Amino acid sequence: MKFSIGLDFGTNSVRCLIVRTDGQGEVSSAVVNYPSGDQGILLSPSDHHLARQKPADYMSSLEKATVEAIAVARKVLPDFDPANVIGIGVDTTGSSPLPVDEKNQALAEYPKWKDNLAAQCWLWKDHTSYEEAARITEIAGKERPQYLAKCGNTYSSEWWWSKIWHCLNVAPEVFDAAYSWVEIADWIPSQLAGIADPKAVKRGVCAAGHKAFFAEEWGGLPDKEFLALLDPKLADLRDRMYSKAYDAFEVAGSLSENWAERLGLAAGIPIAIGEFDVHYGAIGCGVEEGTLVKVIGTSTCDCAVVKASGEVPDVPGICGIVRGSILPGYFGVEAGQSAVGDLFKWWVEGVCKGDDALHVSLTEEAAKLAPGQSGLLALDWNNGNRTVLVDQRLTGLVLGQTLHTSRAEIYRALIEATAFGARMILERISEYGIPVERIVCAGGIAEKNAMLMQIYADITGREMLVSASSQSCALGAAIGAAVVAGEDKGGYADFESAQKVMTGVKPERYLPDAERHATYNRLFDLYKIVHDGFGGVAVVDLAPVMKELLNIKEGK
Amino acid sequence: MKFSIGLDFGTNSVRCLIVRTDGQGEVSSAVVNYPSGDQGILLSPSDHHLARQKPADYMSSLEKATVEAIAVARKVLPDFDPANVIGIGVDTTGSSPLPVDEKNQALAEYPKWKDNLAAQCWLWKDHTSYEEAARITEIAGKERPQYLAKCGNTYSSEWWWSKIWHCLNVAPEVFDAAYSWVEIADWIPSQLAGIADPKAVKRGVCAAGHKAFFAEEWGGLPDKEFLALLDPKLADLRDRMYSKAYDAFEVAGSLSENWAERLGLAAGIPIAIGEFDVHYGAIGCGVEEGTLVKVIGTSTCDCAVVKASGEVPDVPGICGIVRGSILPGYFGVEAGQSAVGDLFKWWVEGVCKGDDALHVSLTEEAAKLAPGQSGLLALDWNNGNRTVLVDQRLTGLVLGQTLHTSRAEIYRALIEATAFGARMILERISEYGIPVERIVCAGGIAEKNAMLMQIYADITGREMLVSASSQSCALGAAIGAAVVAGEDKGGYADFESAQKVMTGVKPERYLPDAERHATYNRLFDLYKIVHDGFGGVAVVDLAPVMKELLNIKEGK
Repeated sequence: MKFSIGLDFGTNSVRCLIVRTDGQGEVSSAVVNYPSGDQGILLSPSDHHLARQKPADYMSSLEKATVEAIAVARKVLPDFDPANVIGIGVDTTGSSPLPVDEKNQALAEYPKWKDNLAAQCWLWKDHTSYEEAARITEIAGKERPQYLAKCGNTYSSEWWWSKIWHCLNVAPEVFDAAYSWVEIADWIPSQLAGIADPKAVKRGVCAAGHKAFFAEEWGGLPDKEFLALLDPKLADLRDRMYSKAYDAFEVAGSLSENWAERLGLAAGIPIAIGEFDVHYGAIGCGVEEGTLVKVIGTSTCDCAVVKASGEVPDVPGICGIVRGSILPGYFGVEAGQSAVGDLFKWWVEGVCKGDDALHVSLTEEAAKLAPGQSGLLALDWNNGNRTVLVDQRLTGLVLGQTLHTSRAEIYRALIEATAFGARMILERISEYGIPVERIVCAGGIAEKNAMLMQIYADITGREMLVSASSQSCALGAAIGAAVVAGEDKGGYADFESAQKVMTGVKPERYLPDAERHATYNRLFDLYKIVHDGFGGVAVVDLAPVMKELLNIKEGK
Repeated sequence: MKFSIGLDFGTNSVRCLIVRTDGQGEVSSAVVNYPSGDQGILLSPSDHHLARQKPADYMSSLEKATVEAIAVARKVLPDFDPANVIGIGVDTTGSSPLPVDEKNQALAEYPKWKDNLAAQCWLWKDHTSYEEAARITEIAGKERPQYLAKCGNTYSSEWWWSKIWHCLNVAPEVFDAAYSWVEIADWIPSQLAGIADPKAVKRGVCAAGHKAFFAEEWGGLPDKEFLALLDPKLADLRDRMYSKAYDAFEVAGSLSENWAERLGLAAGIPIAIGEFDVHYGAIGCGVEEGTLVKVIGTSTCDCAVVKASGEVPDVPGICGIVRGSILPGYFGVEAGQSAVGDLFKWWVEGVCKGDDALHVSLTEEAAKLAPGQSGLLALDWNNGNRTVLVDQRLTGLVLGQTLHTSRAEIYRALIEATAFGARMILERISEYGIPVERIVCAGGIAEKNAMLMQIYADITGREMLVSASSQSCALGAAIGAAVVAGEDKGGYADFESAQKVMTGVKPERYLPDAERHATYNRLFDLYKIVHDGFGGVAVVDLAPVMKELLNIKEGK
């Protein structure tokens, strides 16, 4: 009996999952919250765009989680022996870059920089660099349109170059002190493997291709001439970054003696290349050509794959179609919505000042409403729009309120808004030839909120499946570990055979209701008007919007 | 020492005010809530447009309030003698029509009809007849454009013919049982005077002209040919209505023996013609040419007067410019916003589930915000838009939300929305040549909410004054009573001289701040885009809206 470990670094905590490689179960898991800041995040009272994390938190928390998961595994499975763990996989948020020194040590670990926010890891949802993002979009649009085309024609403030350039602009002393920058998806495996040189860190093509303008067709990272147009110091930095990026077939390194001892595992076992959480999550959900995986959490990430032998079109508004970014041998296609669970949390906790009990009671009340009954329509842009508008400088909207509108109606309207956003993505990728025959959802919301899943089915008109594992990202990372360990060690020769054994969907399925879908089609037409208008896609006639909402409400 | 009485029939209660006619003070007042339904209003669980009231409630409540006010007057002013009350004035909501029999008795008082919602008084805010309103607008637009031009080119579901026609359509048995219909502004004085024939009820030009298409230039009410286009039964009904309407110089009748005894007043004293609350309110606030009076309560009503000798243009979106409707000898100009206090109440009580304490704490928190700091923009249309769009089938909107938006920020945005709506009205009437040199506000909100008043000053760029009386509507009715009583009885020969003595403004004034006004000008530009777009005025480019809101928020 062999095992592999997936380490899933979320926004607020890390999860360690130990699984049997024979597909007979997830043995144990443990979650440890990052100790610093507000739920693990360093915030700024004066700038709500800012979100940073202490790099040391990742390492101390993964150690705790792994030790705990092993302890639990020993209890629940008498046969468990840590010596039979054949590999480790790591998935993280991203783009979450951090500055490092020449020895691949986080700058934040120096006493001099430990309290400097710019020296920490820049968490994916840090949007301080929106101006740099706009400049990069503008300059690349003129000078290197091929770069932009690969990421939906708009470069995001959540991404690599925006963040590093913003650091150079607002904290040049930190920028100058840094030898290089590393994504945490690459940095954490490199730490476990004891790699003490940033240039020796194996970089995943997932982060590189989706967030850093990396592509083999133009020789890796953006050329120095282009980077110099942003700032000559960024052109210099390019030499201290990387020139190659790897897909998930690659080994990031072997577990160092030091970390083997700390974790209680065998030294030398392979560590899979790091990928973003949703990409390994897609693998854990059984992604294959024709399957769209939706990981629905605080935000939503959509993943699909298309055989790399075929032609993949540039899809406007889809941020990154990258060879090997999810599954080796396939183009990885990624889309997303910037606020989903976060949006409901904002409403229930931030505005209604409620807690989990209110989530439950609002859900019960909202579940009784028919489509359109509230007369409301909302946009899910409280954290900007990642796909298909790729614009952080958009904000939320609720319309259709009367003097009788209830908090439960608004709650449902916000859920519907995320479903309309999901449908926009689905229609866009389908329209551009990426096949979607099956939709598999994962994440806490997909598992727990049956009302939301039914609304998603009714709005999209598609069956919604839920991944069998409630820890799909960690499971995907563990699958990656089993694949890099190889068949000889009790793992697998490739992802397809590993997925066949180690993944599945739950028996419960959410089927669309024809009548509700028909009503939602009318609402979706209105959503598109408002979406396109405020999103700057088109000049629209808003006159029918409120009246048609009232018509639908009145059953006309 | 002489006195007059103003009876002010609000949405939920009646107020009786006893004032000295020498301007030396309001002697006493008493408020009695209507006993039936939800805060005096009969609602329908299945139709939130419906709002009715029991006619008997008006009479029983006015009796209680008057008896109580007299009792208090005796205590606070030893010189007070009810025999020195020289007249009674009545103001009410409207258009609030009720069906009556041949003897001017409310149909609702018959056992057969007492529980029939259609047989009650149809309260001003009943919007069940929106379809009839749209049809009347359509038919009048084609056949009698002169009718429509007088009321802003759109006939409202809040008005006389829409409601009566809707009764005919949904409750023909009630329509057929009714001999005629009377506004409560006319019906209550007629009851006090013991008038037992609907055709003998003196109708105020205020209700007739503003709500019932009444104008002397086309011979009174709409002609039968036009009414027959709606329904032949409405044409028949015209013969049982009225052919003349009076301004506030007219006496509605004399207090009957019966009511004199019930109220403890002298029989035979004059009862002034009934006017809508805000019209007498405008008089109580000292309205004259160049003064705009804003009565800010659950909704807002704006009143101005222009000398009847001059030419008054038709102002698009201004519902009713009627000769004599406010002050005799002047055109009365009326505009309004359908939800103001109701909008804040909806947010605090309906959504945030708070009470008065939350109103206070949200006000404190919201008062600390600078214009534009929240990044929010709202429309105040939760109850439709009365002016300048005259469209009940519009709904509320809030945009600009992030994941950090607070309930206090939304509270302030809703207040600002009502101020932008107020500015739309101010700009529209100014643009069409109605002078506004002075703005006097009244109503509970104007008196109590200094933050709101300052926001109104900052958004409009105009000084905001507050009426000295906190009971302006009742005071205006009492002024009307003093005028119909006449100089000989200790009253006045005309309104101008009565107003000079009996009205005033508070010493506190709200002056606009130049910097805040400048920021609000930028926000108002955005408000107009959203207003015109959703209001169907124009096809608009929404692309800059969210971005400019963020710019303002960020101080750019």
